[in-house]
Amino acid sequence: MIDTDIHVLIDPEQLLTYIEPGQREWFRSRGPGLGLPDYPWAHPVSWFRDDAEHAPGKAPTTSVGAIQRQVLDAYAVDVGILNAADGLAIPLMPSAYRAAALARAHNDWLRDHYLEQDPRLRGAIVCPAQDPRAAAEEIRRCAEDKRFAHVLLVGGSERPYGEPRYLPIFEAAAECGLPVAIHSGGEGIGIAASPGGAGCPTFYIEWHTQAVAGSIMAHLVSLLCHGVFERLPNLRVLLMEGGVAWLPGMLWRLDTNWRALRVEVPWLERKPSEVAREHISFSTQPLEHTDGNDQLFFEMLAAVGAPDILCFATDYPHWDFDDPEYMLRRLPDSWRDQVMHGNAASLYGDRLGLVAA
Amino acid sequence: MIDTDIHVLIDPEQLLTYIEPGQREWFRSRGPGLGLPDYPWAHPVSWFRDDAEHAPGKAPTTSVGAIQRQVLDAYAVDVGILNAADGLAIPLMPSAYRAAALARAHNDWLRDHYLEQDPRLRGAIVCPAQDPRAAAEEIRRCAEDKRFAHVLLVGGSERPYGEPRYLPIFEAAAECGLPVAIHSGGEGIGIAASPGGAGCPTFYIEWHTQAVAGSIMAHLVSLLCHGVFERLPNLRVLLMEGGVAWLPGMLWRLDTNWRALRVEVPWLERKPSEVAREHISFSTQPLEHTDGNDQLFFEMLAAVGAPDILCFATDYPHWDFDDPEYMLRRLPDSWRDQVMHGNAASLYGDRLGLVAA
Repeated sequence: MIDTDIHVLIDPEQLLTYIEPGQREWFRSRGPGLGLPDYPWAHPVSWFRDDAEHAPGKAPTTSVGAIQRQVLDAYAVDVGILNAADGLAIPLMPSAYRAAALARAHNDWLRDHYLEQDPRLRGAIVCPAQDPRAAAEEIRRCAEDKRFAHVLLVGGSERPYGEPRYLPIFEAAAECGLPVAIHSGGEGIGIAASPGGAGCPTFYIEWHTQAVAGSIMAHLVSLLCHGVFERLPNLRVLLMEGGVAWLPGMLWRLDTNWRALRVEVPWLERKPSEVAREHISFSTQPLEHTDGNDQLFFEMLAAVGAPDILCFATDYPHWDFDDPEYMLRRLPDSWRDQVMHGNAASLYGDRLGLVAA
Repeated sequence: MIDTDIHVLIDPEQLLTYIEPGQREWFRSRGPGLGLPDYPWAHPVSWFRDDAEHAPGKAPTTSVGAIQRQVLDAYAVDVGILNAADGLAIPLMPSAYRAAALARAHNDWLRDHYLEQDPRLRGAIVCPAQDPRAAAEEIRRCAEDKRFAHVLLVGGSERPYGEPRYLPIFEAAAECGLPVAIHSGGEGIGIAASPGGAGCPTFYIEWHTQAVAGSIMAHLVSLLCHGVFERLPNLRVLLMEGGVAWLPGMLWRLDTNWRALRVEVPWLERKPSEVAREHISFSTQPLEHTDGNDQLFFEMLAAVGAPDILCFATDYPHWDFDDPEYMLRRLPDSWRDQVMHGNAASLYGDRLGLVAA
């Protein structure tokens, strides 16, 4: 089984030692958040599982030991991909220079303190997307280590990721054979645009229901309309944690508009939904709960390419963690192998080559 | 048959005569757009049907004669509800004072030049939503004329419409027995927040595919989370032109989050999807084209309350106008009466009492 979404929380003291000395004091003086933008839409109880590891001072932590105990060993996970949790917001820092320093430190820290510690672990490359050329450099630097499995971008953004300014990031990923994972989160924080599409929401429940899905929809439509996959035929994108039940409707809308409005995007020679099916995957967590409508839901997903497009994820250690056994019970029999393993194995290819037996 | 969405374009010279004299010169000096915010995401060909009425100078127009010829008479429409087209953006003008003057003029102009001209026509009340107390006054003023059928808000907004600042608008509508129609459009223009949820899109096709749907999703989730329908049990909301295929997924997400996060919205004692089913309707145009998946699509809609929640709309004279005959062919037999007539008749009640035989 492959878990495409295990989160690592920054250990500030550890991470500070990786930051270049000339910038280290600025980050230290920002406190334990290291100057990363924070969420005004806070979870009303806790962002984390009740039984997540906590430091003596009660801050949640994600040591390798906790990840082994609560994910890898608990569910016999073959490969777990580590995505930044708080570090997801690096591309939303106002300063591209600070972001570049923190991204570099985060990647090196992840390598030493996680990837080196367990052969089942793979890592996500964080990058300063505010400065796409610098981001591309960081991607190329990290990609030499085959244990980095994808490039990580965040849902919140200044502009949708099809915009030409971001092309160097996708070019670097494609050149290195790395998928780009766009993970929901960060909408409306730091330098990100207003979340949701109708102005800032009020509650976490709104933000988590609609805004985190909306950013993923916007990036999907943007990447398809700008023809990023026509430019980079081997690029693969993994959309994470923005849900997937909206996908049939959004692709129906886009195909219809493509037929009517091709004059605006003449470089799109194929139906966008066909291009999406070849280039886009979705991590499962949180796969929508449907109140008894799973049969309908799986028909909807099949209409847009499931099971081929789904990759299992737990989202450890977040509050809405999906237990693999729950997912196995829920998925149609014939989908299980692909969703739990096959699709991610195909997506990441030789980046998973070091898997322990 | 009831058409819930026929658009009227401003006739600047006519409308100027309705603007209070002290403000008239400002509007006149802004040119034919009267100072309304315009779209940077312009349709690449035309926002209008090729055969729409045009003034000699080529500007599209919507005279009563054209509406009679191309909609009411052409399809034996019993009642047509007139919604502002360019006037939809009144709540997005920077000045609430200008917006109040223009809204008042628009409502009076609509009454004289349309509602008085054909007994089949009903009107939407536009209001300065920037200043909810003034908006509520305008709603109460117009509501005395029973030919005004609903209050019209625009998809683009500073904040989602569940925010308490907007409550006076919904209170006035509920008090007057008027539904509130939230019509997609205006996202990102004037004082509206950034559209789409991940920063400004580039193309009209993106804006029309995702941003116009996103604002409607955000308002729906916001109204439900703030408990607006618990406060105003007789309020009905009609969501217009933002699509509907995303609805099952969005309500599944919201119900799930309501179960987990009720501590944040303790005033919600029932599943949000149940509340939505009782209080929310959708206009059909543009009912998603599904590339041969209509059976699946109608099952999706049935899972969230269709056919009860759908009200037919043509969106005349826009480019993606839906012909009623096309809709009749497409709908399941057992849905036709409700979608084409019954649901709107129930939504508007005695506001349609003057219908010609």
